Amino acid sequence: MGRIAITDGMSEKAVSILLKAGHSVQQEHYSEDQILQGALLDYDAVVIRSATKLFKKEIEASSSINRGIGFIGRAGVGVDNIDIETATNHGIYVCNTPTASTRSVVELTIGHLIASSRHITSADKSLKGGLWEKKKFRGTEIGGKNLGLIGFGRIARGVANVAIAFGMEVHIFDPFISDTPEGIVVHENIEDLFSSCTHISIHCNLSEETKNLVSLNLISLMPGIGADGVECGNHIVSCARGGIVEENDALEALDSGILASLALDVFENEPLGDSPLLSRIGFHGTPHIAASTMEAQSRVGTEMANLLLEFLDSGKPGASLNGMQI
Amino acid sequence: MGRIAITDGMSEKAVSILLKAGHSVQQEHYSEDQILQGALLDYDAVVIRSATKLFKKEIEASSSINRGIGFIGRAGVGVDNIDIETATNHGIYVCNTPTASTRSVVELTIGHLIASSRHITSADKSLKGGLWEKKKFRGTEIGGKNLGLIGFGRIARGVANVAIAFGMEVHIFDPFISDTPEGIVVHENIEDLFSSCTHISIHCNLSEETKNLVSLNLISLMPGIGADGVECGNHIVSCARGGIVEENDALEALDSGILASLALDVFENEPLGDSPLLSRIGFHGTPHIAASTMEAQSRVGTEMANLLLEFLDSGKPGASLNGMQI
Repeated sequence: MGRIAITDGMSEKAVSILLKAGHSVQQEHYSEDQILQGALLDYDAVVIRSATKLFKKEIEASSSINRGIGFIGRAGVGVDNIDIETATNHGIYVCNTPTASTRSVVELTIGHLIASSRHITSADKSLKGGLWEKKKFRGTEIGGKNLGLIGFGRIARGVANVAIAFGMEVHIFDPFISDTPEGIVVHENIEDLFSSCTHISIHCNLSEETKNLVSLNLISLMPGIGADGVECGNHIVSCARGGIVEENDALEALDSGILASLALDVFENEPLGDSPLLSRIGFHGTPHIAASTMEAQSRVGTEMANLLLEFLDSGKPGASLNGMQI
Repeated sequence: MGRIAITDGMSEKAVSILLKAGHSVQQEHYSEDQILQGALLDYDAVVIRSATKLFKKEIEASSSINRGIGFIGRAGVGVDNIDIETATNHGIYVCNTPTASTRSVVELTIGHLIASSRHITSADKSLKGGLWEKKKFRGTEIGGKNLGLIGFGRIARGVANVAIAFGMEVHIFDPFISDTPEGIVVHENIEDLFSSCTHISIHCNLSEETKNLVSLNLISLMPGIGADGVECGNHIVSCARGGIVEENDALEALDSGILASLALDVFENEPLGDSPLLSRIGFHGTPHIAASTMEAQSRVGTEMANLLLEFLDSGKPGASLNGMQI
């Protein structure tokens, strides 16, 4: 029977599926040092979220000729904390659960978009301070505006679907899509996307190409006046990955009025701790909770448990990221 | 040329339309006492929002045989601050702008719904306090849940449209509708609506029948477990009118855990000032800003200006609420 390490937590239901199948499950967080000293060598599989980092050295320390992990499960979507190439070289499957959190991220993205345009967090704070500042919190509508999506994967498509129901026109930039989705404006370069949209939401992975992609240069291209002629200002939302929005540039854009609002669920450094963004009117944020719902965590857990069962029963999971089978 | 009093403000564009047409416009707030002393007698028309109250005595003081107003314009939707019967008896047209703010109210309603289910205001406050409380702010999805709408007019229909795009099932209770909208569950009594829905949004007028309608008895019927089987708790949103949700009952429901969240844009007493609701986790609110967007105020202003021009030019507006013509 398999030995499974769960280092960043997993739903009870998923753990119970694994235990019932007769596998042993160790739920414990290992530090980088512990992993480098071989803490994972006695496991067949490890399941992580974003807190555990499995880069080259950590993977090398977790795999030797006759021992070590053959399966890295990422309970969630982003795999920027895993060196997939090294895993592949060591014959280790890397699996994530890309669809489980889609709906949750879509909902938080739209929630942040409206919270920004309607000042929900500041208005709530003002109300709770005993004030009644109706005029101060006059907002703008999202309907009638252009929403620009960077990346057009599952989550962005979900956001687009709802945005269209709100009466927004959806614009996208994604060099990797092959289909031309109906009713959506596709841009060939990201500058055109920013020039066309007062509202931008980020839905790409963090990579060499996307690191610090959303710069002051790009933000400065945003029109400030909506497609409906209303001076709604410019608004950016990100529930994707920290580091894609260049935070110093975004701060400068807020301070200079180029950006009316910035809503972030993800940050270059997490936990965020202190940041000059926190004191800015126009900024509001959440602590990386886009996938943090009961529903998503339950789906993540059961999907990951099924991948683990397939791997432990047959030696290979039904699907993996490093292309050893689909 | 006509003499128009604007007592609670109006968009610059609308004022400019009236001035260009040669009418005189006085923008000034009159107190109840001033109105009772005949402050409006020298005007042909008055435009109010919600701050000015024109009940029986105020209308009688604003109209005599040869002088006084012949037109009350409500720049907005709700006319619970106008005694329409008295206006009719005095031959005064009462007009509002019912469609101008629909989109803005729909957007804030959905914004509040997601802000509640994802703890956006508390998570933002925590983040701005230097904390990183990921686990504390685990939320629930709205997709897969039943949304109950009290009233099914323009705004509720807009909310339903977006809610369906999110994957919610829409339930309604509205004794006044004659059509049976497709894809929507219609309930014959309000108890059935509450028994069927973990999420409720209010979209009816304030009247004798709806005053304190949302009571602890009704809230206690809500299932707490979503249509998808998830224990999401019960959630209520109101961007309609204060006084429909019985605030003491809602407080008790929050304190006892029957309600997981309550988001209000409207209150029994406005400005709200102090309220025990303000200290409750699970409550968040905004100061009656559902129609307070640049777009809605601009539409309200131009629609009202057109009604005024029709009245001042021909003696009757193109449409009015007191049935003297449509």
